[in-house]
Amino acid sequence: MIEILVNGARPTDVEQAVAAGDRGLHYGDGLFETMLLANGQVRFLGDHLQRLADGCARLALPMPDPDLLRGEIRQLAAAADQGVIKLLVTRGVGGRGYAPVEEMHATRIVALYAAPQQARVAVTAGWCRVRLGRNALLAGMKHLNRLEQVLAQMEQTAAGVDEGLLLDTEGELISAISSNVFLVRNGTLLTPDLRFCGVRGIMRGQVIRAAVELGIATCEQPLRPEHFEDADEVFITNAVRGVRSVAALDAYRWEVGTVSMRLRTHLRV
Amino acid sequence: MIEILVNGARPTDVEQAVAAGDRGLHYGDGLFETMLLANGQVRFLGDHLQRLADGCARLALPMPDPDLLRGEIRQLAAAADQGVIKLLVTRGVGGRGYAPVEEMHATRIVALYAAPQQARVAVTAGWCRVRLGRNALLAGMKHLNRLEQVLAQMEQTAAGVDEGLLLDTEGELISAISSNVFLVRNGTLLTPDLRFCGVRGIMRGQVIRAAVELGIATCEQPLRPEHFEDADEVFITNAVRGVRSVAALDAYRWEVGTVSMRLRTHLRV
Repeated sequence: MIEILVNGARPTDVEQAVAAGDRGLHYGDGLFETMLLANGQVRFLGDHLQRLADGCARLALPMPDPDLLRGEIRQLAAAADQGVIKLLVTRGVGGRGYAPVEEMHATRIVALYAAPQQARVAVTAGWCRVRLGRNALLAGMKHLNRLEQVLAQMEQTAAGVDEGLLLDTEGELISAISSNVFLVRNGTLLTPDLRFCGVRGIMRGQVIRAAVELGIATCEQPLRPEHFEDADEVFITNAVRGVRSVAALDAYRWEVGTVSMRLRTHLRV
Repeated sequence: MIEILVNGARPTDVEQAVAAGDRGLHYGDGLFETMLLANGQVRFLGDHLQRLADGCARLALPMPDPDLLRGEIRQLAAAADQGVIKLLVTRGVGGRGYAPVEEMHATRIVALYAAPQQARVAVTAGWCRVRLGRNALLAGMKHLNRLEQVLAQMEQTAAGVDEGLLLDTEGELISAISSNVFLVRNGTLLTPDLRFCGVRGIMRGQVIRAAVELGIATCEQPLRPEHFEDADEVFITNAVRGVRSVAALDAYRWEVGTVSMRLRTHLRV
């Protein structure tokens, strides 16, 4: 961590910075965004703040003033030219028990991290045994309840692949652990609809928008592992790492395809 | 909050007590226990520490030394005769991203809260629209991913019943928001098996053990709302509030029954 603001202030000690009663800590009662800082600019900042606002509305969580958030993000962005900015917003400090107290004040944490290593254009993937539970109530949001991802990540690290792919408990394909997934079949882009779980990634949204602009048919639909069988091209997307092709999954092998290259060029990622 | 220890030390400022990078905050990557302090004694402390150890094993989370935890709990318990002690254990401070860093040191937070108002013997219940997602991987544990409970609690507060009952996404009865639920039918005790979701409550375990000692047949099995139709008696259990009878749910009315009274006497709750 290079720099951090907690509720707008630089903590004296980053090891003692957050309230012991914060509901983010007690219940994962909050949301986060992970943003790419490139050449001094936070990419897709408007999209990130919009997703945050949507999540706050769904959780009835008091959204901090977006201008305040923009100011704090800009303040951190000024400390580096390249990097990753993580924003956490929680429901704030509560008492004991699940019920929020009367006047909740959201907690804002904005942290600047070093830029990631240059993302490779192509990665290897493998299946995680960890399955994602289904709950339409929480689907799509980038909330702080991430134990499934933590367990999946440990599994992926042990397996030695670049990216772990996740199914839900009913066997539908959802995503990689921190990326969305796209398949290209006969020139059409396919991606899981995420109606029951998964995160609606910012780069996923950008890719779908770009595909429309480029005249590439795009379907959000239920997908299963069998769909990889006749995929011409597979790629994953993430706001920080952009668009990366999947080169291998089990016995399947794919080249870096033309559709992902067109999208990458169009989006400058 | 009356008193708190964070990793064994009293924080100078409870509003700045926890590391900004704690994985409990970022991912809900941890577990908790809520314990009753009565007459200077922490009730069922051994059971609580055992459940914590089981959860740590399932999450591959480094369990703090139980003697250390006992010492910190005793230290807080010495500050009051009655109260509630909440223990949080998280995977500690990590970097950015889901992967735990090499040497994780669990974070320990032990907090003493005021005693709850004297629990009523009988409560009213209502159904929450919020459903619990199913994931056997996380079922039974008292982990920190509690957004579903937060949303359900807001609903219950708005509905004005004492206790909100929860179904899972497939329509099975799971529990109340922070209590387990039991039905008595023809002298037999029925309780949800919690194979897909819910928390295996300490008082739930005590009740099942007590029922065996009292010769009351007990079945852990899938239950549905229809099972309330021919229930002779319904009660809920929780480590802090003990055993409470459900007096009303929709059009159903129940008296405080003999089975719950026998269990209450046997367990001294």
